[in-house]
Amino acid sequence: MAMPFPFSAIVGQDEMKTALLLAAIDPSIGGVLVFGDRGTGKSTAVRALAALLPKMRVVVGCPYGCDPANPGAFCDSCKEKAAEGDLKTRQVPVPVIDLPLGATEDRVVGALDLELALTKGEKAFEPGLLARAHRGFLYIDEVNLLEDHLVDLLLDVAASGENVVEREGLSVRHPARFVLVGSGNPEEGELRPQLLDRFGLSVEVKTPTDLPTRIDVIRRRDTYEHDPAAFVEHWKRRDGKLRSRLTAAHKRLGDVSVPDKALERAAELCMALGTDGLRGELTLMRAARALAAFEGDSEVGDKHLRQVAPPALRHRLRRNPLDDSGSSVRVDRALEELFGA
Amino acid sequence: MAMPFPFSAIVGQDEMKTALLLAAIDPSIGGVLVFGDRGTGKSTAVRALAALLPKMRVVVGCPYGCDPANPGAFCDSCKEKAAEGDLKTRQVPVPVIDLPLGATEDRVVGALDLELALTKGEKAFEPGLLARAHRGFLYIDEVNLLEDHLVDLLLDVAASGENVVEREGLSVRHPARFVLVGSGNPEEGELRPQLLDRFGLSVEVKTPTDLPTRIDVIRRRDTYEHDPAAFVEHWKRRDGKLRSRLTAAHKRLGDVSVPDKALERAAELCMALGTDGLRGELTLMRAARALAAFEGDSEVGDKHLRQVAPPALRHRLRRNPLDDSGSSVRVDRALEELFGA
Amino acid sequence: MAMPFPFSAIVGQDEMKTALLLAAIDPSIGGVLVFGDRGTGKSTAVRALAALLPKMRVVVGCPYGCDPANPGAFCDSCKEKAAEGDLKTRQVPVPVIDLPLGATEDRVVGALDLELALTKGEKAFEPGLLARAHRGFLYIDEVNLLEDHLVDLLLDVAASGENVVEREGLSVRHPARFVLVGSGNPEEGELRPQLLDRFGLSVEVKTPTDLPTRIDVIRRRDTYEHDPAAFVEHWKRRDGKLRSRLTAAHKRLGDVSVPDKALERAAELCMALGTDGLRGELTLMRAARALAAFEGDSEVGDKHLRQVAPPALRHRLRRNPLDDSGSSVRVDRALEELFGA
Amino acid sequence: MAMPFPFSAIVGQDEMKTALLLAAIDPSIGGVLVFGDRGTGKSTAVRALAALLPKMRVVVGCPYGCDPANPGAFCDSCKEKAAEGDLKTRQVPVPVIDLPLGATEDRVVGALDLELALTKGEKAFEPGLLARAHRGFLYIDEVNLLEDHLVDLLLDVAASGENVVEREGLSVRHPARFVLVGSGNPEEGELRPQLLDRFGLSVEVKTPTDLPTRIDVIRRRDTYEHDPAAFVEHWKRRDGKLRSRLTAAHKRLGDVSVPDKALERAAELCMALGTDGLRGELTLMRAARALAAFEGDSEVGDKHLRQVAPPALRHRLRRNPLDDSGSSVRVDRALEELFGA
Amino acid sequence: MAMPFPFSAIVGQDEMKTALLLAAIDPSIGGVLVFGDRGTGKSTAVRALAALLPKMRVVVGCPYGCDPANPGAFCDSCKEKAAEGDLKTRQVPVPVIDLPLGATEDRVVGALDLELALTKGEKAFEPGLLARAHRGFLYIDEVNLLEDHLVDLLLDVAASGENVVEREGLSVRHPARFVLVGSGNPEEGELRPQLLDRFGLSVEVKTPTDLPTRIDVIRRRDTYEHDPAAFVEHWKRRDGKLRSRLTAAHKRLGDVSVPDKALERAAELCMALGTDGLRGELTLMRAARALAAFEGDSEVGDKHLRQVAPPALRHRLRRNPLDDSGSSVRVDRALEELFGA
Amino acid sequence: MAMPFPFSAIVGQDEMKTALLLAAIDPSIGGVLVFGDRGTGKSTAVRALAALLPKMRVVVGCPYGCDPANPGAFCDSCKEKAAEGDLKTRQVPVPVIDLPLGATEDRVVGALDLELALTKGEKAFEPGLLARAHRGFLYIDEVNLLEDHLVDLLLDVAASGENVVEREGLSVRHPARFVLVGSGNPEEGELRPQLLDRFGLSVEVKTPTDLPTRIDVIRRRDTYEHDPAAFVEHWKRRDGKLRSRLTAAHKRLGDVSVPDKALERAAELCMALGTDGLRGELTLMRAARALAAFEGDSEVGDKHLRQVAPPALRHRLRRNPLDDSGSSVRVDRALEELFGA
Repeated sequence: MAMPFPFSAIVGQDEMKTALLLAAIDPSIGGVLVFGDRGTGKSTAVRALAALLPKMRVVVGCPYGCDPANPGAFCDSCKEKAAEGDLKTRQVPVPVIDLPLGATEDRVVGALDLELALTKGEKAFEPGLLARAHRGFLYIDEVNLLEDHLVDLLLDVAASGENVVEREGLSVRHPARFVLVGSGNPEEGELRPQLLDRFGLSVEVKTPTDLPTRIDVIRRRDTYEHDPAAFVEHWKRRDGKLRSRLTAAHKRLGDVSVPDKALERAAELCMALGTDGLRGELTLMRAARALAAFEGDSEVGDKHLRQVAPPALRHRLRRNPLDDSGSSVRVDRALEELFGA
Repeated sequence: MAMPFPFSAIVGQDEMKTALLLAAIDPSIGGVLVFGDRGTGKSTAVRALAALLPKMRVVVGCPYGCDPANPGAFCDSCKEKAAEGDLKTRQVPVPVIDLPLGATEDRVVGALDLELALTKGEKAFEPGLLARAHRGFLYIDEVNLLEDHLVDLLLDVAASGENVVEREGLSVRHPARFVLVGSGNPEEGELRPQLLDRFGLSVEVKTPTDLPTRIDVIRRRDTYEHDPAAFVEHWKRRDGKLRSRLTAAHKRLGDVSVPDKALERAAELCMALGTDGLRGELTLMRAARALAAFEGDSEVGDKHLRQVAPPALRHRLRRNPLDDSGSSVRVDRALEELFGA
Repeated sequence: MAMPFPFSAIVGQDEMKTALLLAAIDPSIGGVLVFGDRGTGKSTAVRALAALLPKMRVVVGCPYGCDPANPGAFCDSCKEKAAEGDLKTRQVPVPVIDLPLGATEDRVVGALDLELALTKGEKAFEPGLLARAHRGFLYIDEVNLLEDHLVDLLLDVAASGENVVEREGLSVRHPARFVLVGSGNPEEGELRPQLLDRFGLSVEVKTPTDLPTRIDVIRRRDTYEHDPAAFVEHWKRRDGKLRSRLTAAHKRLGDVSVPDKALERAAELCMALGTDGLRGELTLMRAARALAAFEGDSEVGDKHLRQVAPPALRHRLRRNPLDDSGSSVRVDRALEELFGA
Repeated sequence: MAMPFPFSAIVGQDEMKTALLLAAIDPSIGGVLVFGDRGTGKSTAVRALAALLPKMRVVVGCPYGCDPANPGAFCDSCKEKAAEGDLKTRQVPVPVIDLPLGATEDRVVGALDLELALTKGEKAFEPGLLARAHRGFLYIDEVNLLEDHLVDLLLDVAASGENVVEREGLSVRHPARFVLVGSGNPEEGELRPQLLDRFGLSVEVKTPTDLPTRIDVIRRRDTYEHDPAAFVEHWKRRDGKLRSRLTAAHKRLGDVSVPDKALERAAELCMALGTDGLRGELTLMRAARALAAFEGDSEVGDKHLRQVAPPALRHRLRRNPLDDSGSSVRVDRALEELFGA
Repeated sequence: MAMPFPFSAIVGQDEMKTALLLAAIDPSIGGVLVFGDRGTGKSTAVRALAALLPKMRVVVGCPYGCDPANPGAFCDSCKEKAAEGDLKTRQVPVPVIDLPLGATEDRVVGALDLELALTKGEKAFEPGLLARAHRGFLYIDEVNLLEDHLVDLLLDVAASGENVVEREGLSVRHPARFVLVGSGNPEEGELRPQLLDRFGLSVEVKTPTDLPTRIDVIRRRDTYEHDPAAFVEHWKRRDGKLRSRLTAAHKRLGDVSVPDKALERAAELCMALGTDGLRGELTLMRAARALAAFEGDSEVGDKHLRQVAPPALRHRLRRNPLDDSGSSVRVDRALEELFGA
Repeated sequence: MAMPFPFSAIVGQDEMKTALLLAAIDPSIGGVLVFGDRGTGKSTAVRALAALLPKMRVVVGCPYGCDPANPGAFCDSCKEKAAEGDLKTRQVPVPVIDLPLGATEDRVVGALDLELALTKGEKAFEPGLLARAHRGFLYIDEVNLLEDHLVDLLLDVAASGENVVEREGLSVRHPARFVLVGSGNPEEGELRPQLLDRFGLSVEVKTPTDLPTRIDVIRRRDTYEHDPAAFVEHWKRRDGKLRSRLTAAHKRLGDVSVPDKALERAAELCMALGTDGLRGELTLMRAARALAAFEGDSEVGDKHLRQVAPPALRHRLRRNPLDDSGSSVRVDRALEELFGA
């Protein structure tokens, strides 16, 4: 689609939109899991976010889209070019790469270039989807149907920011920093707790239940499809404002402080909920900090923790045999006890 | 079969015929699912519809059948030819491609041309079934027995109108707009709700139960098989009239308006039925609009919604443990409550 | 076996013999399913029928055995030869091709000729079993153990009379008209109703239970095996008579009329039995017409319908949970109600 | 093993020995199934029988061991040699080929000679185990663990005496007449009735339970293993006598008559036992005839039928839910009723 | 990660840290299994330990990282270089190799170098992960999900210190001494007792449950990630001290004596716990000796046995149907009975 | 391991040691199965036995290690060399080959040498593990986890002393006489009775339960590992004595007589225990004879039978539903009844 749906034209679904924005502000928060009904625009939202982000500058001809402003992270080929003073750059949209369910590991991580191997006997690397997702988003529809070892691999690369390929005599290492966005329908199989825990945030989307919202969604969609250009033009200003706010938040992130009080709150909350390990707490802190940056606050406070706690912790609760409330209810209850109603 | 059975000679099965016609008028409605007894002429109807449609003009030698009237959507090879002013065209029937159950992904999406690869070391693309279905129909008999990831892939391509092949070092992208028609027997396994939802319309066909209709079907079939040419000649005028109406509806589609009242009605109906997401509503609106265009009306009204609601929503209902009525009954009941008996 | 067992020397098994003869008279009736005890001579009967049929004339060197008398259906190579006026013909026996259980799809439909591909880099087609069965019989022992998608494919080709191969860069289309004969033991797994329905006729064979018949079978078999030539000579005249009758019936087929009364009867019968779809009715009509032709009658009447109804409908009944009579009993009962005892 | 254990030195196991001898006299009886305890010398017996048979004369260099005395059954290569008058012959022992459980179909039926294909681009046939078993024995230990489709294939070839290979562009047909001997332990999985029925005879072997027999077996085995040559020499005369008797029976076979009375008896017995189909009766007749020939009788009588009925019918009984006696008991009971105690 | 988290900055988790240190002091103790909650820094600890160890000197260009100080264990290529007096050395960090879950055996043990094989027809060895782990650590996350035969193979190599590859015509043998560290979540499947027993030590890690510790962990992690260099600098001295202690312990190991009294104690403990075989006792002795060396003691005493008994024995207990206490409780109870509270 | 643990230094485990010695004296006894706890030194014992045996003389360059003293059993290549008078010999240790669980059939039996095939188009044989085990031991850890068809194949080769490879156009036959030693843990799956029966002897090993023995084991192991050379030197004399006794027994074997009385005893014992077939009896006789030879006796007597009966028969008992005593108890009880307490 040449002209994605504008992010600001998405009706409702605030939790999902916020989670995506926070992950864009601080990618170290980790990927975003979007659970919920089919046909609620999950894929549309990711594409919209990518279009919202400022275009990025890349080295011309680099298969990984190396950032000319960060020579320290250059791939081997860019290093060579830089050494030869032969580095041209251009601007491209932030990539959104779809990972199809049937994708092989070869296609994802890259593989031996068979053509070169067969015709010239040369062992060259043919970059995969991870290379193309660098500095952008990797979107997996129905991530719960993907094979575990692939999800594992994706989370490993997303966490380390580097794709290491060691096989068929290849030994390649290239940057691969991206935000992983997975969507799924919890009714169709679940992710292992081990994998759930490695996603930063999780949100639930639902079909809107009030008439005006529904008509709004349909009408906007129909208007957009009838004349995409006019529709995008109509929302241009609002998208522009959001883009500025996002850029500002990203710059301000390092200056937002996290007082001990906030860390205590985060720990108390996690202990009350009995989350395993400390990934929940780390994510909670980072997401709260990104939210503070987005809202222009200089310090993380209760209001930030409160807002991001559900998406940061919801998917990290153990099943409690004595309490069959949903995870969201349990997080809300703990929040209320800790922060007051 | 050189001379398909005439569309107008199909006895009964009005819902199926209407659904196919609407999908032909507005392909963005999405594919059509035909459920029902074996031996009820599902495949015959699709082939008949394709033969009913006016022949289409294609670029000579183009493996994708590019439309000479739409240079913006040309494939790479047609772009080259156009630039060289070397574009010849000819008329061909609208294609109906069968997707056999055992088809591999390679065969469907296209693959590396092994001959060229082995003999000349060239990496060329060998188009698959999707390329051949462009601008026509892709017919899958017993779609419920196809592997999920293939159905998924087909629905993706059908939705985006583009086939993107990224593997074995190939990076090919070609237009692939087609109407997906799947037939199936619900007694032999079901499609996942996730996939059902991505089909636009669903219809049920039954064996006729009155004597004269049955004899009519058998007699027409026998007459047809005995002398196809004479039979087709006999129905020529009726097919011609239908063809004109179809062409007119396709042109008029953009001028049919959808008043807020109609959108409200559609939303109320979907909420009453509790369909997940908003694909149901979108389809309902589009199908009603296509029907209005087919019937020469300038605005979508209750009568259009009423008629298309069953095929647009029937396959999107959740199983209701407290109500084991069939989906059709539930849609009819909701229609009656909303629009009156 | 150079000298097959004579068809007229087969003891008993009248329903099977009639079904095979009808399928030979009008191949559009569809394949024949033979169910029953092992060791009852199913394979012998098919081979005997093929030997009974008059030899057929083929184009010399044509891998598909094209019929010199039907230039309209020539394969590409025969068309070329005809154009060059270089068409030689010869007579060959009607082929009976065995489809082994473990056969791959490649072997059945044909495949890329690997030798030519590897040694000369040429992409040539190597015809499969379907090519060799053209104008004859394809016999599948234990068809119920064959993979569904293969049975499906065979029925598709048998129905369309054409084998279309589209893969590995091949695009081949050649005539493949044959009568499919499948045998099976219902105790060892069943065919899906979907597949059952696509066979024209089904018959049941049983081990004879009277002493003289059994001794007759054994004695004839032993005599035949001791000196095949003498045995075949002994039955030559009877086989000759049957051959003439078969040839006459085939010619007369187009002149046999099917009055409305007969169609009504057929429809009433199918409705009484609740068969899905209309394939049952079509087959019933065709089989009755072929029988009338075989018996020298000019019009289809009750007696023909009565005789062919069991093999034409038996395998199309739905399982009736309230009536556990076998299918044959149910067909007989319906016949009695409709036509009187 | 260069010097097989002498057939006449086998202690006891008369039913097995007789079955093997009868199958050697008239191979059209079909294969022999040997069921029973492990460690009872089943494999030893087959090898002993092969060594007992007179050496056979083969064409030098023929991979199928063509019989110089039967030019009508020559393979293509022997036909060529004969035409060129270049046919040398030599004597070889009757082959006993072991079919290992893990054998692939390629290895069994033969396959494309990959070496010639790869190095010279020639499509040559590399004969498989079936070629080597021609005119001898094919022994399958634990036949009940072999894949069904392989057993099927083996029985097909054994029945037709010809191995037809149609794949990978090969079209080869060579003689493959052999006696199939399968051993198995019924406690470790059963053959499908369909397959059981296609074996000619079945015998059961048991561990001897009297002391002197057991000591005899052990002592003979130990003596044999200590000095095979001396042991074989010791039994040479007895083996020689048996060999002469076998040869005589084989020649006399065509002259043994089977009176109607005997056929009636056979049919009555099979009907009493309710065996499906007529393979049981055919086998019974042939085995009785072979036994008569072996015993020097000129006509088949009750005593022959009685002796061969258990091995000919035992494996063809249907499981009777009301009678859980073993098959042997049921055959014996029927024999007693029919022939008197 | 260029700058691993400092080992001394790891908060708590003393049992895991000690087990890793002991395995580093005496690698013959065998691998370490780390069980416990996700997100508790298991992988971080292994990387930290490797960074703590003094850099090691390797032969330049050697794919196995041969130790220049140990010419007796040189690989073939190093032997050649040494003979030619052409041996250059350099210092490298101790390797930590990750074994991904989906790794093939080829990738682990090494394989034929396909490039050389295809292009030059040379049969060369392409070293695998085991070669790269030599003299360092092999880390397997979720070892309980790895295929048994791979775990087996890893334990074999780890025990023998040598990787022997015999396949595809390769016959390679190279040193591969490493400490195997496996982490796992006991809730997601268990290792077979057979494999458990072959790991030297096992430890359990838990999420800390006191507030200050949790805040400490989060704060240190955040500080580290914000500015790794500064953080590492801050802990440099403490890591240095630990490194010296480790080096000293390694040297002193051979001088620590194990009195009979200690062996008796160890045997009594194992017998009280009913561990199978004697691997438990051997490990207990070695781990106690390594601990004594680490603590500067010259003789193994009760205090050392007491401390290492849980990690050395815990995973070697049989499930006791009459006692469902956890393994740790059972070890503690036995320790108390034997050594007093 | 360059210096295996000395056989005489193995503490306890007398039954296992005797069984291994007997199999070394008379390899026709068949393989040895060692069942029991993990960590009881099973693999150590086999390696120790191999090191105990006198070195063997082989033909230089022969991949099968042909015995220069036995030209009758030469492989083809050695025959050629001998004919050319070009046979050099050297001494090598008796091989102990490990068969890894994941080994493919190719790797075990040998396969086409792909390098020669690909590069020179030559079809050469690349010997497998069986070739390397010739004249030594083949050790399979956890034999109960090996695939049945591989165990079967190994037992076949071990029984016939010859490895016959017939595939991929190879037709190779080479000597492969070895003692198969399998270890297993009965708690982790069982061998099929069919396979159990083909092993000659079976022994059970247990963890010692008295303190001094355990300390002895640990101490010896520790001493050995600390300085293997000194330890081996220390036990050299005892190993030497055992070696002489073994060599003497091997020579004397043919002179030990087996009186009828002993055979009767053996048969009575097997009948009392109801073992299937006669392999038990044969093994019992051979093992008793080997034991007599080892103990310097000239005739097999009760004392020999008594001692070897448990390992010879234990694994051949049928499960007795009325007697759930272990197999060893049942053998002991039968021995007592027969021979007196």
